[in-house]
Amino acid sequence: MQRIEQHASFGGRQEVWKHASASLQCDMKFAVYLPPAALRGEACPVLYWLSGLTCTEQNFITKAGAQAHAARHGFIVVAPDTSPRGSAVPDDPAYDLGQGAGFYLDALQAPWATHFRMESYVVHELPALVQQHFPASDARGVFGHSMGGHGALTLALRHPGRYLSVSAFSPIVAPSQLPWGRKAFAAYLGDVGAAWAAHDAVELVRGPLSQRLHLLVDQGEADEFIDTQLQPERLREACAARGHPLTLRMHGGHDHSYYFIASFIADHFEHHAQALSGRA
Amino acid sequence: MQRIEQHASFGGRQEVWKHASASLQCDMKFAVYLPPAALRGEACPVLYWLSGLTCTEQNFITKAGAQAHAARHGFIVVAPDTSPRGSAVPDDPAYDLGQGAGFYLDALQAPWATHFRMESYVVHELPALVQQHFPASDARGVFGHSMGGHGALTLALRHPGRYLSVSAFSPIVAPSQLPWGRKAFAAYLGDVGAAWAAHDAVELVRGPLSQRLHLLVDQGEADEFIDTQLQPERLREACAARGHPLTLRMHGGHDHSYYFIASFIADHFEHHAQALSGRA
Repeated sequence: MQRIEQHASFGGRQEVWKHASASLQCDMKFAVYLPPAALRGEACPVLYWLSGLTCTEQNFITKAGAQAHAARHGFIVVAPDTSPRGSAVPDDPAYDLGQGAGFYLDALQAPWATHFRMESYVVHELPALVQQHFPASDARGVFGHSMGGHGALTLALRHPGRYLSVSAFSPIVAPSQLPWGRKAFAAYLGDVGAAWAAHDAVELVRGPLSQRLHLLVDQGEADEFIDTQLQPERLREACAARGHPLTLRMHGGHDHSYYFIASFIADHFEHHAQALSGRA
Repeated sequence: MQRIEQHASFGGRQEVWKHASASLQCDMKFAVYLPPAALRGEACPVLYWLSGLTCTEQNFITKAGAQAHAARHGFIVVAPDTSPRGSAVPDDPAYDLGQGAGFYLDALQAPWATHFRMESYVVHELPALVQQHFPASDARGVFGHSMGGHGALTLALRHPGRYLSVSAFSPIVAPSQLPWGRKAFAAYLGDVGAAWAAHDAVELVRGPLSQRLHLLVDQGEADEFIDTQLQPERLREACAARGHPLTLRMHGGHDHSYYFIASFIADHFEHHAQALSGRA
């Protein structure tokens, strides 16, 4: 592990680290915000932020305005890159497949299966690294945007007990049904219906779950992808049908950008704080 | 004037506009944040943000986290580009001269004098446009970062009464004395000592002023340019010698980045609010 950036920020420190990932078999970067409490050596809950298509570890830490809230709540915030990276890693010229489009799952078929194992990376390898190198408690939450909102919802639903809280901005809730998800799932998972359903938040909510974690979802009504790629009403219907706790907030005028995320990120920290604070 | 971006943000709207500038004789972009009060048609004070070397109108609006504070205070915030732009505009391969490096002055010599008139643009043309197109009151403040901190300080000192408040992050306070400023002044102003002093905050403070506006300056102690380009103690000494009101805050661990700006931008809004609020 090598620290490649550090910046004082709201009494804490925004850092970026580089390391050789065993799950992804490539060098990876991730961002970590250490709040003042962590710099004092106190064990802090960890929030994992998962970014959307084309993003790296940089987008969230430069644009979301999260550090002020992380500092106040005493949360470590970890933001990984969105896929394996590098010239040895398969890629696709499209922005929505290959590098920058890992979809937070472990790919099942060639040429993707060797490196594209973002679920293993985010759920297991990265938290182990974080526990080892930073004053992290066992309390974990996960949130994300768009493809990363899909990641947050599916990882929390697939790994009961691993995350105490989950939320999403403008998530892809039904990747099996809509173009971004269908393209990625066909490439990474192949023609396997059961594998698709296992990585689809709507399908997961419909199925049997040992735990029904409260989902907070914020969605802009002027989001340019709402009709073609997101369709949050699918999640609303599935949650209503199964009695799964969901707070879905629709925001007039808001688009798919980080301006939307920044406007409501304080509420997401409050949501996670209800589950994570005092759990250090 | 053509609106090329708009995003809902903290109950207001972040917009970017493009227009043909008469002062600069090229197309220019500027960003404007309209707080909720402006969307309701109330006349709002206007804060002008001036960015640093290499920046465009984008850096501040994506990275500083200013919108939350502008929304709360009811301030319109205008962020222009840092120089004239385009293939018809002279440039230099270096990052610190030509496009992206306008230094907020009107150039006196070829090839720069035709287009590089950022002082006229920021002080006169842009405010006239803003008054015409948005619900702006006459109350104006100016702030900025690095080269833009130099801009904020010198424009406020050179135009008494035009700005009711001024502040700066990591400003170039003595451009006549240090490399970035000397290179730019030699190119834009030529070999004219008086012209250099007229655009140097330390020299302006030392001279006769009809008004001594309180200067708020924040400076990171881990700023990678503090010794070579900034030397804030020169401003402290000049202000002390002339009794010019200055609050210079040194921040341990902070660097030259937008992480520094974001950490203290709330205080700058408070500073400007003391002069601007209730002046709508």
